[in-house]
Amino acid sequence: MTAQGGDTGARRIDSWVTFRPELKVLDCTIRDGGLMNDHRFEYPFVQRVYETAVAAGIDYLELGYKADRKIFAESTAGPWKFCSEDDLRRIVGEAAAAGPSAVKLSVMADADRTDYHTDILPREQSVLSCVRVAAYVHQVPTAIDMIKDAHDKGYQTTFNLMALSTVQERELFDALEVVMAGPVDAVYVVDSFGSFYSEQVRDLTGKFVKMARAAGKEVGIHAHNNQQLAYANTIEAMLAGATWLDTTISGLGRGAGNCPTELLLGFLKNPKFHLRPVLECVQELFVPLRKELDWGYSIPYMLTGQLNIHPRMAIELRESSTPDDYVRFYDSLTEDTD
Amino acid sequence: MTAQGGDTGARRIDSWVTFRPELKVLDCTIRDGGLMNDHRFEYPFVQRVYETAVAAGIDYLELGYKADRKIFAESTAGPWKFCSEDDLRRIVGEAAAAGPSAVKLSVMADADRTDYHTDILPREQSVLSCVRVAAYVHQVPTAIDMIKDAHDKGYQTTFNLMALSTVQERELFDALEVVMAGPVDAVYVVDSFGSFYSEQVRDLTGKFVKMARAAGKEVGIHAHNNQQLAYANTIEAMLAGATWLDTTISGLGRGAGNCPTELLLGFLKNPKFHLRPVLECVQELFVPLRKELDWGYSIPYMLTGQLNIHPRMAIELRESSTPDDYVRFYDSLTEDTD
Repeated sequence: MTAQGGDTGARRIDSWVTFRPELKVLDCTIRDGGLMNDHRFEYPFVQRVYETAVAAGIDYLELGYKADRKIFAESTAGPWKFCSEDDLRRIVGEAAAAGPSAVKLSVMADADRTDYHTDILPREQSVLSCVRVAAYVHQVPTAIDMIKDAHDKGYQTTFNLMALSTVQERELFDALEVVMAGPVDAVYVVDSFGSFYSEQVRDLTGKFVKMARAAGKEVGIHAHNNQQLAYANTIEAMLAGATWLDTTISGLGRGAGNCPTELLLGFLKNPKFHLRPVLECVQELFVPLRKELDWGYSIPYMLTGQLNIHPRMAIELRESSTPDDYVRFYDSLTEDTD
Repeated sequence: MTAQGGDTGARRIDSWVTFRPELKVLDCTIRDGGLMNDHRFEYPFVQRVYETAVAAGIDYLELGYKADRKIFAESTAGPWKFCSEDDLRRIVGEAAAAGPSAVKLSVMADADRTDYHTDILPREQSVLSCVRVAAYVHQVPTAIDMIKDAHDKGYQTTFNLMALSTVQERELFDALEVVMAGPVDAVYVVDSFGSFYSEQVRDLTGKFVKMARAAGKEVGIHAHNNQQLAYANTIEAMLAGATWLDTTISGLGRGAGNCPTELLLGFLKNPKFHLRPVLECVQELFVPLRKELDWGYSIPYMLTGQLNIHPRMAIELRESSTPDDYVRFYDSLTEDTD
């Protein structure tokens, strides 16, 4: 029932009973979840997530950003906003002592918020394997330089164009074309606002994949759960040819959260993935965390997703004293703004 | 941007910027939600849901079952297990006094659990418009007689073949063929266990639609949210040609619940639908209800969905003193049973 080996040639990619060895699961629980607590996860929590990723067969794990300390004071955020080499080694070192590690580490580098020439070390001096460059469309020239810098230092690189759903197609494909002319390994379909329907994800991913294959690149998907579509859209992108799949444990992430790691692992048929360690981690770490942090689908996030706008107003409402005042929130979002 | 009028001929059904006037939203909040509280909703609660359906432009509203009182003692369940004409009129009557009503009422009739010859009244003596016959594949002969009985009494009828995901295709299409030879108006793709992926829903709905069109019938979709796919699968079925779309407010329903009415109304572009009354209802009725009833996506329901089994063991776990003991539950589901 399953396809074996490393060939990716004639095998069907659109059937759910096979598996595709080229698929990579990138768990960004700590990175995207850090947007909910200013990246203040305790070391034991992060270590446990790291150990879970290793045990589950996850391919990449992303713990945070490489934020510029000249822009962001260290006192205003936890360690995972900066991901110093010391902090990363603290996680990898202790976990590695428990057994051999397979998971690769990635970091996110925001355009115009990263002192990348200084803070991205040469690959041989770092435990990082991959640098993911996140940019808005007007920051593409910066992103191109960042990708080149990271590539020259020896890293795998991806390009994550944020707020894709607000970019005109012409601009989008122009941006992709110039980025793909460089050394980037993968370009991401990023649904920052959780506004895409599955049909749109299929269509857009198909176009990305066509361009990427011609350039010898891969395509990734990063979905948000505003409309309960993060998992559905991740599968659709995968069936359309995406091979880098972002997930987070228990869907932890900004606002409505992301595609849950446990749902995707239950879908993927590659026997290298193991669901049980993720369930253990959810049970022991994330059930208690729900008492501290409010993330995941709720009506306010549904509304910002349906309207294709940034979730920040929904996050404000959820953190206010009236988190369930949906009607007033709906009225404020839909009032005449012209 | 939108298609107008009642023609269904050459118009594209697969684009999300148009609307299709032939689509019908059937809200079964009280019926499917009744499986979580033995159909014991208070009259004011049901009235409010009825008024919401009217204000929101919902096409059909389903309040419960027509259970046989010789099989189920009235003391063991609330009024919506039986949906007596008096109880239905109590809802419609008081609500109708507040303004003109458009929503049609449907009822679910379970094969072998309904004294249909007696309890389904002639159409002209009832406020019901539609009888939905639910059956497992071995009950198809009974279902055919029930459909004929209801049709002859003047009702619209649908056939809801339960636990579709466990039926062999050969049996399934044989069953559909004999049912469609009768007077049924629509046949449903019912994902009782919430186990279908969108790809399977597309494929199966496409086959249903092909058969149904040839017989002059329509197709419906009833999805469950075990894998966070109820809404995604409802859209996929719609794009594949389904025209009867089941939803529940706030996703209320057995176990992981259903496709949320508010998500689907946000997707459908027909201006007859109104989201705001549904948001009001969620805020005032369903946020408080979450303190009494536990429904919606959680890991135990994800697991029974992934394994394509009935959610009853997950419901038991969620009602136990250890609702979040996911690992032991996983182990119990996956242990060797051969």
